Amino acid sequence: MAAMILVAGSAFAQQSLMGGQTAKSPEINPDGSVTFRLIAPKAKRVQITGDIIPPIPADMNGMRMDMPATVDMVERNGVWEYTTAPLEPELYSYVFKVDGTTTLDPSNIYMYRDVATWSNILIVTKEKGDKGDLYSVNKVPHGNVAKVWYDSPTLELSRRLTVYTPAGYDNPGNKTKYPVLYVLHGAGGDEDAWPNLGRAAQILDNLIAAGKVKPCIMVMPNGNTNTSAAPGEWSAGMYATSMSGGAGFPPAKAGMPESFGDIMKYVETHYRVLTGAKNTAICGLSMGGGHTFQTSLLNPGKFGYIGLFSAAVSIPGASMQAGFDQAASQNAEFQARMKAMFAAKPSLYYIAIGETDFLYNTNASLRKYLDANGYPYEYRETPGGHIWRNWRVYLTEFAQRAFK
Amino acid sequence: MAAMILVAGSAFAQQSLMGGQTAKSPEINPDGSVTFRLIAPKAKRVQITGDIIPPIPADMNGMRMDMPATVDMVERNGVWEYTTAPLEPELYSYVFKVDGTTTLDPSNIYMYRDVATWSNILIVTKEKGDKGDLYSVNKVPHGNVAKVWYDSPTLELSRRLTVYTPAGYDNPGNKTKYPVLYVLHGAGGDEDAWPNLGRAAQILDNLIAAGKVKPCIMVMPNGNTNTSAAPGEWSAGMYATSMSGGAGFPPAKAGMPESFGDIMKYVETHYRVLTGAKNTAICGLSMGGGHTFQTSLLNPGKFGYIGLFSAAVSIPGASMQAGFDQAASQNAEFQARMKAMFAAKPSLYYIAIGETDFLYNTNASLRKYLDANGYPYEYRETPGGHIWRNWRVYLTEFAQRAFK
Repeated sequence: MAAMILVAGSAFAQQSLMGGQTAKSPEINPDGSVTFRLIAPKAKRVQITGDIIPPIPADMNGMRMDMPATVDMVERNGVWEYTTAPLEPELYSYVFKVDGTTTLDPSNIYMYRDVATWSNILIVTKEKGDKGDLYSVNKVPHGNVAKVWYDSPTLELSRRLTVYTPAGYDNPGNKTKYPVLYVLHGAGGDEDAWPNLGRAAQILDNLIAAGKVKPCIMVMPNGNTNTSAAPGEWSAGMYATSMSGGAGFPPAKAGMPESFGDIMKYVETHYRVLTGAKNTAICGLSMGGGHTFQTSLLNPGKFGYIGLFSAAVSIPGASMQAGFDQAASQNAEFQARMKAMFAAKPSLYYIAIGETDFLYNTNASLRKYLDANGYPYEYRETPGGHIWRNWRVYLTEFAQRAFK
Repeated sequence: MAAMILVAGSAFAQQSLMGGQTAKSPEINPDGSVTFRLIAPKAKRVQITGDIIPPIPADMNGMRMDMPATVDMVERNGVWEYTTAPLEPELYSYVFKVDGTTTLDPSNIYMYRDVATWSNILIVTKEKGDKGDLYSVNKVPHGNVAKVWYDSPTLELSRRLTVYTPAGYDNPGNKTKYPVLYVLHGAGGDEDAWPNLGRAAQILDNLIAAGKVKPCIMVMPNGNTNTSAAPGEWSAGMYATSMSGGAGFPPAKAGMPESFGDIMKYVETHYRVLTGAKNTAICGLSMGGGHTFQTSLLNPGKFGYIGLFSAAVSIPGASMQAGFDQAASQNAEFQARMKAMFAAKPSLYYIAIGETDFLYNTNASLRKYLDANGYPYEYRETPGGHIWRNWRVYLTEFAQRAFK
């Protein structure tokens, strides 16, 4: 009855009665530790998992990996609680396991989807300019973020694209043209990945406001070329998503590298853009790093700044795990493309990977090949594995180097 | 180990290991019933709640209300299951309760937030043109949806706004100007409410493609004037949201009706819009219906189409529950404003409400006042209460009447 009065008194949707009791969670404590709480008086065991807990190192055939850790929460009066060690500034994600069943924190409305899995998120910030601050929405001018539809004649599809335009872009009378940064997602991701878990708009807003990145248009396409858009956002309906992104759909007419020109054409005809290599950057994570690699090879001289983040790089026709030297020696076309691409002298060829990334060896092999051929690149190695935490850092670094 | 190989083989983010086992859920059966499943072998009781189950009628001081029903699921081999009766075409929402704790369906990535509560959603469609079809993304040209930032000098804030531009709007060389439909959310909502649970972009895409709605720009502002944006989307950080929308923030410099001109000014200077009453429509649900009511009163002759959806209408200074006749008789200014507004002869004054809406009596009182004064309006009464299901219908009807 109290709930009903509340509802009536505040013109609140009845559906919200479906929400249960909530506890204060997460609570960021003065020492930087974080307390999580869940009301579950009838549960026998409640655990929490996520990168709020140091990961468990693992080894797979000589590849180092980090596995997410899971810890028990402690119950008191029906409320389960866990307090972390003090946490460094970062965007964290977590979920509860209630007697083994994955449960999102009903007290925390902030959550993101990564492929087929939702997790709650929180941001820990200590001071201005730290990672938590960089990923937060701050009191700075904000760019606009649009979901637009472009035609891909190559793929014979109308497709969804996320476009960030910097603050001031749409000011009436503004005739300024802007450089363009293309940012590509990984396997199972889509055009919502970088704007959400990647915090790409916040990173650019903050870096542009600080004068560290040149105001630019950031384009975040969908890299699953047999689909039109993120799950639920196109006519395939609300299907169960998967890592392959397009399971069950007809095969694509072409890959991302072969169809990338359709995206560039849309952007260059619909926005006020500066063209040419000095004004065009491309980067991507994992599968999107592979797309970046191949797209830059197909378009020598088009991209002045090329960023491979934990990239799933490979030589067409060769296994991703194969050494580049060996595979390249059997592929004259690949060698010619690499030569042409580096002959155009991109201003920046940036390779970044985590030291426990399962693609570490693949990227080491690529670096060996680049070294052997005298192709210049910059290399950044960070702790951790194949995770968003690293990709946000790489975007932050790469964006600051572009267009300069 | 199998999971690790899967991860390594597909360049999949390690974070997704946090997701647990999933069952096939929801499964729409041939007869239109829907089966929900949750793997929870250790749970003692699992329930499901949402509008997939007929609501429970309730009575509060003579006001009819619908309370969401909750039913038990049945366990077999650790999988809890519930099958509904055949469901009519509609967008439904639901959550599980695992031993009393609200649990989102880990097998269903589709979920929306309503104020502080997330629920899973599903759409049931039987045939082309039904409600499920209308709320789905179909093979029709899609409008673009942008989150933009506008300056509100009245509120002394930069604020976030959702703008839908119809398919073709951004075609290079297109000089067409479009009418504008302003769509306002309810208490606790924000600029994400209509695009998400309201399915506003899908409704417009489909109705425009069917030739039933004139291509128009749809503007979905944030009605909480002491905030800049939806929770997490502005510098207040990731705060716990509430029905009041702005709890804990400094009071607003002005209300929505008084600051609405700032939104119109932004739209009219940043988009190719047709102006004047014949090209300008405004509608809103609940609190947003109240905002629509007051904004139209403050701007006689500006809006040719005015839609009050389950509107929290009131006379300034008088209780929302007070009868309009009695309150108006003591308020000459209100009477004068109503007179001026109707003297401008809006093409459509549309009032819609559910028969079990807790604002039913308030709206009945408004109608009585309109009748007594000979002010023309159209009235639509539907089954059900103060719920999105009704508001989507009202938007569908109202949009088809606008600009004609």
